[in-house]
Amino acid sequence: MEKAKIDFLKTTLSLYIDHTTVLAKLQQPNSEFVILDVRNAPAAIKKDQIKGAIAMPAKDLGSRLSELDHRKTYVVYDWTAGTTLGKVALLTLLSADFKAYELSCALEGWKGMHLPIEALSI
Amino acid sequence: MEKAKIDFLKTTLSLYIDHTTVLAKLQQPNSEFVILDVRNAPAAIKKDQIKGAIAMPAKDLGSRLSELDHRKTYVVYDWTAGTTLGKVALLTLLSADFKAYELSCALEGWKGMHLPIEALSI
Amino acid sequence: MEKAKIDFLKTTLSLYIDHTTVLAKLQQPNSEFVILDVRNAPAAIKKDQIKGAIAMPAKDLGSRLSELDHRKTYVVYDWTAGTTLGKVALLTLLSADFKAYELSCALEGWKGMHLPIEALSI
Repeated sequence: MEKAKIDFLKTTLSLYIDHTTVLAKLQQPNSEFVILDVRNAPAAIKKDQIKGAIAMPAKDLGSRLSELDHRKTYVVYDWTAGTTLGKVALLTLLSADFKAYELSCALEGWKGMHLPIEALSI
Repeated sequence: MEKAKIDFLKTTLSLYIDHTTVLAKLQQPNSEFVILDVRNAPAAIKKDQIKGAIAMPAKDLGSRLSELDHRKTYVVYDWTAGTTLGKVALLTLLSADFKAYELSCALEGWKGMHLPIEALSI
Repeated sequence: MEKAKIDFLKTTLSLYIDHTTVLAKLQQPNSEFVILDVRNAPAAIKKDQIKGAIAMPAKDLGSRLSELDHRKTYVVYDWTAGTTLGKVALLTLLSADFKAYELSCALEGWKGMHLPIEALSI
């Protein structure tokens, strides 16, 4: 059972990337990291987003994969860690052979740490 | 590893149903969907619930399975997505061969979307 | 698929321990249960903790395993259930053959239930 628990935890943790790592990766020259905001809400509801993120609603992701680049690594996030939307987006990306992670703690955690965000024009 | 991640995400997501799907299913005539409120708290603490839900505390579920119908599909929810109670209830239902899902984002998400709730008489 | 779901839920739930069980175990004479606060924040940010917890930041855990006792059972917690830090700590402990669980609902849930906490001296 311990082996099953350990494997389970390793796989769970392999899906996530934390904000510290994301910030460090983004600061490298020619960073291959790209943040995708996969929230389905319109800009008027979202109001702001992680600085530099690309809006790519989870509901559109499957039909917009041609806009993505297999040399990049994508970090997806939704409002909070409790939703399933980030996992839906991550599954779409991994199934299409993209390198991708879900942002640990989502937008809620990013804001809670007072990390860079930007207002959305409505 | 990607295969392990993809299988893991598919299984995770297969446990949940989102509020949009639940609402659509409930509006069908003779809907087979039934929402179970599995919170263990008394009505005075719960105060309200998802409209039309049946109170079926997780702690009692195992001894009340005879009240359920194998032709139905059950959607369980707890206060928030961060608790384990919904998973405990879901495990009980699936192990007894019922069709069941956990409501994605739980009651907290349902209220956050301003979906129909009803006050509980105390 | 139902078998996969059931196994998945069993493994998920096997990682957690709920506050009721923790409190009952701690009240036994010569309890083998020890609560580890694995938050990485300094005391000035944490401000308080679960009563009787030992501060063992997840970032230091790997290098401080010699301080732990294989006869004990460790319960780790982070700020909320949505973070991955508790799982990181749990993986470290289980991989080193310690008996360990993550506290269901984390510190947020413990405080929400008004269970015993204590202020941290700064």
